[in-house]
Amino acid sequence: MRLTVLGCYAATPRTLTNPTSQVLEINNHIVLIDCGEGTQVELRRHKIKFSRINHIFISHLHGDHFFGLPGFISTMRLLGREKELHVYGPKGIKEAITLLLKLGDSWTNYPLLFHELSSKESELVFEDEKISVTTIPLDHRVYTNGFLFSEKIGKRKLNIDAAEAYGIDKAYYHNIKNGKNITLDNGKVVDNKELTFDPPAPKSYAFCSDTIYDESLAAKIKDIDILYHEATFLESEADLATKTKHATAKQAAKVAKDANVKTLVLGHYSTRYKSIELFKEEASTVFPNVLLADDGKTFDF
Amino acid sequence: MRLTVLGCYAATPRTLTNPTSQVLEINNHIVLIDCGEGTQVELRRHKIKFSRINHIFISHLHGDHFFGLPGFISTMRLLGREKELHVYGPKGIKEAITLLLKLGDSWTNYPLLFHELSSKESELVFEDEKISVTTIPLDHRVYTNGFLFSEKIGKRKLNIDAAEAYGIDKAYYHNIKNGKNITLDNGKVVDNKELTFDPPAPKSYAFCSDTIYDESLAAKIKDIDILYHEATFLESEADLATKTKHATAKQAAKVAKDANVKTLVLGHYSTRYKSIELFKEEASTVFPNVLLADDGKTFDF
Repeated sequence: MRLTVLGCYAATPRTLTNPTSQVLEINNHIVLIDCGEGTQVELRRHKIKFSRINHIFISHLHGDHFFGLPGFISTMRLLGREKELHVYGPKGIKEAITLLLKLGDSWTNYPLLFHELSSKESELVFEDEKISVTTIPLDHRVYTNGFLFSEKIGKRKLNIDAAEAYGIDKAYYHNIKNGKNITLDNGKVVDNKELTFDPPAPKSYAFCSDTIYDESLAAKIKDIDILYHEATFLESEADLATKTKHATAKQAAKVAKDANVKTLVLGHYSTRYKSIELFKEEASTVFPNVLLADDGKTFDF
Repeated sequence: MRLTVLGCYAATPRTLTNPTSQVLEINNHIVLIDCGEGTQVELRRHKIKFSRINHIFISHLHGDHFFGLPGFISTMRLLGREKELHVYGPKGIKEAITLLLKLGDSWTNYPLLFHELSSKESELVFEDEKISVTTIPLDHRVYTNGFLFSEKIGKRKLNIDAAEAYGIDKAYYHNIKNGKNITLDNGKVVDNKELTFDPPAPKSYAFCSDTIYDESLAAKIKDIDILYHEATFLESEADLATKTKHATAKQAAKVAKDANVKTLVLGHYSTRYKSIELFKEEASTVFPNVLLADDGKTFDF
């Protein structure tokens, strides 16, 4: 699993900082999470092919998470896209994009499919044999969802040495990979587990931005691998965080601790602080394994 | 008059090129012309204060001229703007911006005033004692206007040496600056022209993008100082230019020549060519005084 942070700063695009957008590579899927202004340019800078993105998840309709989407969708048309593009986001997103494309008389040539969200309960929004994506309802100033991306358990891997030791013909390898036991010529049945390795443990990533500190959030992301939680402020601005329905670094760490996640990634920093290291210092007093997102940073999990 | 080109490339934002946006400083006004994605960042890069911009002129509602506007308007709110902001653009622009701000529950605290355009005839859209702005209807794939920005003739400048030579008291200087003749103590009347210098010649700038080559355009911008005319293509792609309702460098030069403008500025280049110098070479075969716009370039006229 690879996370590329295209932008992770709050409020407005600036010369050196971008608003929120991330690319998550998970089990052969490449998904875009949020799409602040400038996302297209950052995708190009990281040489991520637009055509490989088939699913876009938008947390909420504040400009710093969303104003890059109309341009991204338009560019896909100019690049000659033909495949379906799926957009998951709050109710209203379809009307907004449709109006903008209509005004420019630039409707897409490719199928653009909106999955509008309005539930206040968690719901499964995408699933195939590789991954599932469920919403994590968040409490922010407007209707907002985080997203939980979960890999599915893969197939068991063939242990060639074991198969050869039993003298099993290669013609049966396909069956072994599919979990079948094998009956030898002498009638003995070899359990599939003797002929295979465990598949890699499936990983999970939760994107939670923007949100106020919410104690109940931990239960929804219990024991996951990686939590990206917004930390717009430090504790010194805790009142402002509550008022604007954002969280502090310490609060993000509390969620990570309560949820027993493996790794916490912080982001969505206000640009008022002189260094983002301050966020890590504060969060580390509560939770040990803290990483700092930053524009252009890539994490391999 | 100073023109700062924030972006001047066609179609999509790229790592090294921005879509259309310009800042024109004219007679103490600072206006923004078009607002492609990334405009905010370019304004910051050029240290142009957002608060000094009170008028925004949008040529048409294709994304590369317009998708930076929602973010710019939102940022003005975050920066605490209180002054009126005037937006001139095609009918529909108000609905689009209003919907986006409504979805983000982020309506502006300052007065945001839309002046929607739908006429196919040139019309005066702004005027004060310093400048006037009139539309230049253009022929593109969607409803499009160029804009003609014209300085007004300033006041005559006091010739202090002449006034002193006549022994005129300083108390009368204000009247002289306002164009009055002066009656001396001996009864002689001194003509105002003897006591003043001519004001600087008023300058004019026409922004014409995007547009097909249109012979009738020259008559609308006759004898102006500076013409910015789109040159998306070279003559080798003249058919494509016509088909997409864009112009070639040579066609832009023909308009400049027919209109008898002083200077032609080219822009809105397709990124398919290896150098923008090719546009200058082609245009210069028809019209001598050609400048190339480029991202980050500033012209003082």
